[in-house]
Amino acid sequence: MPTVNMDFNPDFSKGLVPVIVQDEAGGEVLMLAYMNEEAWRMTLQSGEAWYWSRSRNELWHKGESSGYVQIVRAVRLDCDSDAILLLVEQKGGAACHTGRRSCFFREWRDNACHICSPRIFDPEKVYGKAK
Amino acid sequence: MPTVNMDFNPDFSKGLVPVIVQDEAGGEVLMLAYMNEEAWRMTLQSGEAWYWSRSRNELWHKGESSGYVQIVRAVRLDCDSDAILLLVEQKGGAACHTGRRSCFFREWRDNACHICSPRIFDPEKVYGKAK
Repeated sequence: MPTVNMDFNPDFSKGLVPVIVQDEAGGEVLMLAYMNEEAWRMTLQSGEAWYWSRSRNELWHKGESSGYVQIVRAVRLDCDSDAILLLVEQKGGAACHTGRRSCFFREWRDNACHICSPRIFDPEKVYGKAK
Repeated sequence: MPTVNMDFNPDFSKGLVPVIVQDEAGGEVLMLAYMNEEAWRMTLQSGEAWYWSRSRNELWHKGESSGYVQIVRAVRLDCDSDAILLLVEQKGGAACHTGRRSCFFREWRDNACHICSPRIFDPEKVYGKAK
């Protein structure tokens, strides 16, 4: 079997690589984030998800402030190696800073918009301010 | 209920928006693509997935050459409106140009790399050349 360092690496030559985060148990897509090489390395080394925050322009250990880390169960790469898929166990049950399980909580279906992912926590209590 | 044009729109102000494509029935993530405003409009109007091809630099009606179009059952937006999730019915059962069901067919798990998505068609037969 190839090792991660040999054959299983995203292509960072064009910059940040998008990362799809999927709940391993239920299959719900939780969020989309981005990695640089260091976030990729930190994720593989620690077994928890690290990203590059484009808004803060810094490495981001997901769940560091909320405690809601993502335990990485498996990693997939796409055919062009320019997108990553993480299968995770989401601690606390919520990935979104709004307190909802998934960042993709607004759904358009059958000509109507509705909320499709439940609120798990109150962001004001978790982050100490309204979100 | 809000209409698509009023309240349910991705933020294209920073350029192309990444699109996660998920099989509605099985929950498998099939691919990651990108949309510009025209692809977004074409997708909503036609009910089939349209993207912006970054390699060909043109609008891309997914499945136009292979016949393997994606019927859009629902559309989700994330909390920042800068990522899109399509829930689709994948005609022909395969989204990847390699003939596999998912572009994310290489998986790293338990210190080993393996193939996690089956080959559905022979790309040489579908596209007329080896991929």
